[in-house]
Amino acid sequence: MIDEGVKALFNPRSIAVIGASRHPGKIGYTILRNILDYGYKGKVYPVNPKADEILGLKAYKSVLDIPDEVDMAIIVVPEKIVLKVAEEAGRKEVKVLVVITSGFSEVGNVEAEEKLVEIARKYNMRILGPNIFGIAYTPLNLNATFGPNELKPGPIAFISQSGALGIALMGWTIMEEIGVSAIVSMGNMADIDVVDVSEYLAEDPNTKVITIYLEGLKPGTGRRFVEEMKKITRKKPVIVIKAGRSKRGAAAAASHTGSLAGSDQVYSAAFKQAGVLRALTTEEMFDWARVFASQPLPEGEETIIITNGGGVGVLATDAAEENGVKLLDPSPELKEAFKKTMPWFGSPKNPVDLTGQAVVENYVEALKIAFESPEIHNIIVLYCQTAILDPRELAPAIIKVVREYNNKKPIVVGMVGGIETYEGMKILKKNNIPAYPSPEKAVVALSALIKYKRYLEKQSKI
Amino acid sequence: MIDEGVKALFNPRSIAVIGASRHPGKIGYTILRNILDYGYKGKVYPVNPKADEILGLKAYKSVLDIPDEVDMAIIVVPEKIVLKVAEEAGRKEVKVLVVITSGFSEVGNVEAEEKLVEIARKYNMRILGPNIFGIAYTPLNLNATFGPNELKPGPIAFISQSGALGIALMGWTIMEEIGVSAIVSMGNMADIDVVDVSEYLAEDPNTKVITIYLEGLKPGTGRRFVEEMKKITRKKPVIVIKAGRSKRGAAAAASHTGSLAGSDQVYSAAFKQAGVLRALTTEEMFDWARVFASQPLPEGEETIIITNGGGVGVLATDAAEENGVKLLDPSPELKEAFKKTMPWFGSPKNPVDLTGQAVVENYVEALKIAFESPEIHNIIVLYCQTAILDPRELAPAIIKVVREYNNKKPIVVGMVGGIETYEGMKILKKNNIPAYPSPEKAVVALSALIKYKRYLEKQSKI
Repeated sequence: MIDEGVKALFNPRSIAVIGASRHPGKIGYTILRNILDYGYKGKVYPVNPKADEILGLKAYKSVLDIPDEVDMAIIVVPEKIVLKVAEEAGRKEVKVLVVITSGFSEVGNVEAEEKLVEIARKYNMRILGPNIFGIAYTPLNLNATFGPNELKPGPIAFISQSGALGIALMGWTIMEEIGVSAIVSMGNMADIDVVDVSEYLAEDPNTKVITIYLEGLKPGTGRRFVEEMKKITRKKPVIVIKAGRSKRGAAAAASHTGSLAGSDQVYSAAFKQAGVLRALTTEEMFDWARVFASQPLPEGEETIIITNGGGVGVLATDAAEENGVKLLDPSPELKEAFKKTMPWFGSPKNPVDLTGQAVVENYVEALKIAFESPEIHNIIVLYCQTAILDPRELAPAIIKVVREYNNKKPIVVGMVGGIETYEGMKILKKNNIPAYPSPEKAVVALSALIKYKRYLEKQSKI
Repeated sequence: MIDEGVKALFNPRSIAVIGASRHPGKIGYTILRNILDYGYKGKVYPVNPKADEILGLKAYKSVLDIPDEVDMAIIVVPEKIVLKVAEEAGRKEVKVLVVITSGFSEVGNVEAEEKLVEIARKYNMRILGPNIFGIAYTPLNLNATFGPNELKPGPIAFISQSGALGIALMGWTIMEEIGVSAIVSMGNMADIDVVDVSEYLAEDPNTKVITIYLEGLKPGTGRRFVEEMKKITRKKPVIVIKAGRSKRGAAAAASHTGSLAGSDQVYSAAFKQAGVLRALTTEEMFDWARVFASQPLPEGEETIIITNGGGVGVLATDAAEENGVKLLDPSPELKEAFKKTMPWFGSPKNPVDLTGQAVVENYVEALKIAFESPEIHNIIVLYCQTAILDPRELAPAIIKVVREYNNKKPIVVGMVGGIETYEGMKILKKNNIPAYPSPEKAVVALSALIKYKRYLEKQSKI
């Protein structure tokens, strides 16, 4: 059962911004502006005792003055008056507090944080934060953060226990054409935690994959994490990057978010038990997420590599073997078929080497064979930039074939080259085909999909 | 002693392009055009029996007709007449043949390749190739390749045993602002091999670091590789990416370049013995090369991390511990000094956390302390994009401080964020400060520099 307060976090009918500001540059201004600019359709009420109007909206002296129900109250006031406005929000029957304000347990001010939780309990409110940059949920056109405002909608949810990194990654997803459903800043996790949010997102039809930047769980919540995540990962893939793996990193994490880091072995064991995929860098986490967001689960493990460069083929082969991606040994018939897509000195073995003379048609023909052959379950397309094949022409051709076959097999693309290659990959990514700037990244991303499939199969046998 | 033929490869006074073409799109056209457009100052002679003039230059029926000495002959004619034109080049006393043409041992035509070598020996010529995309040497404004033509000059030499990947990476270096001294396509290595080229580059004042994409050495050349590379790595760092690490990858490499791949353990041992740094991806190779290209060797191991985000600080700390980068425990005095560069809730420990409220001045002050403190030998600067600090303003400020202190300590930068961050990193890279899109990459790149320093110290004690 998802709590009403958590639900309100992702589906508020009305929002009060307590501490809304008229001054550009202030967080209380940016958040209100982001909410309005990103197109939130519910009601928005700025609260500021010194203003009559902010950004064209009537402002209220107190949340209690608002002549309407308020589902979510975003608190941006100075720490000293957070408790006072929280109390008022409680009396107003607000469902969830989004406490942006910092200066609580993360700087040793445990007492104020405990009082905040007490107030919330008294009025049956939930709290996100404190010490966060906010929450965004693109299906609702809601961007209640002070981060960038051009978020691309898509099926990847991102939960961040780090504020600065979370905001920075918001900008990065925009640049990288990564479509997100939700971005949730966790902060001190005084109340709502990673598991609560994940539980909601597991049921959210707009989210296909959950990514989490985690520094540490609260003491005593480890067992719950494993038990609940186990249920969630049967529904959707969850990818975690756990910072504080090393001894010194754990100490740094403890001083950063105040989380009891615990030994890395404990976390490793917990992730494994819970079926959570563990990435080692934020890039890797999103590399994997992209595949889950756009590709079907494979029907089997047999994988083919189609390339125009022998070298990238070898690099991909190494990466495949090192990451448990099984490369198909094609049947004589299949080799015969591939042979027809290449010059005489090409190779129909796996990697299928179309040679540097390959043009769009060679790739298209080889791709069609790959989609049609029952021997093949997964497709890796590699491309080295050549003078005779423009990546910006190859990209649309790949998209066309993938659509023709209804994307019925997972496909990932790896491209190496200059600016034109970068543009070619952008076209692919915009059209839901994961594309990576190296053969290895393409292989590793696919391997995450295959590992998840194996996990689901194992679970279904238990 | 460097051979005259190898010298001529990097310093030809005159070049004949045998098989030069008038038709755009043909390799014999592209190479000639690249040589002219990139500004080579020596004499250039197109050779083509059917043309009188190509790209404004008088064309000759045969290399023998050229009324001048020819140091380098680039051969782009069809395989069938390569031996004939090689014989003529020999009679012309050409010093080095750059044989672009393919169709030799890589497709089983061993006989023709052996004959080509015989001809070269007879006339005391050296051969680069066959089956290559050419050679570029930017200090001479020489781009005798059919790759892209906007190469950025710099101190990184890149030797590639793969043609398609090599050309693709040429384009990539341009996009990534990576400055190169030489790009050398090795192809079948019928004569000149990776060691010959590395020996030359070890003495080349325009090259600071040598990078090599290697699929395999020729049988019987392993011992020479180790012995000669050992001498070279005492002079300059050499970074190798060896493809064909896995069993299946080795088989793919064997069918690609015909190289006897040998077991990966053998290569690993050889690299270790020779002091060669081994990267696992091409990106990693250039990530490391960038540091060697621009940063001094450190005087010690103590490293400081300066950040505006706790999360990236933790990630960097993990990466430091995992890659043998020693993080300094600052003295009380040093902590006191750092404390003055940040708000009260910042952390003067290592990572030095300037907090998300950091502006340019905070970074500048912290950086100055880092350059001045005798406790610190290496500097890692991290930045998470925030609304109050534009990365395009932070970048020039970092550059200014680094110049003020004559770059006397190695510095690397890691930035996370959107397009503005990307632009900030571009400014840094253009100004010889290695910048990476993740904290981990910055740390790992620095670790390569520290490892090389350790290697040199160990060698000097032997």
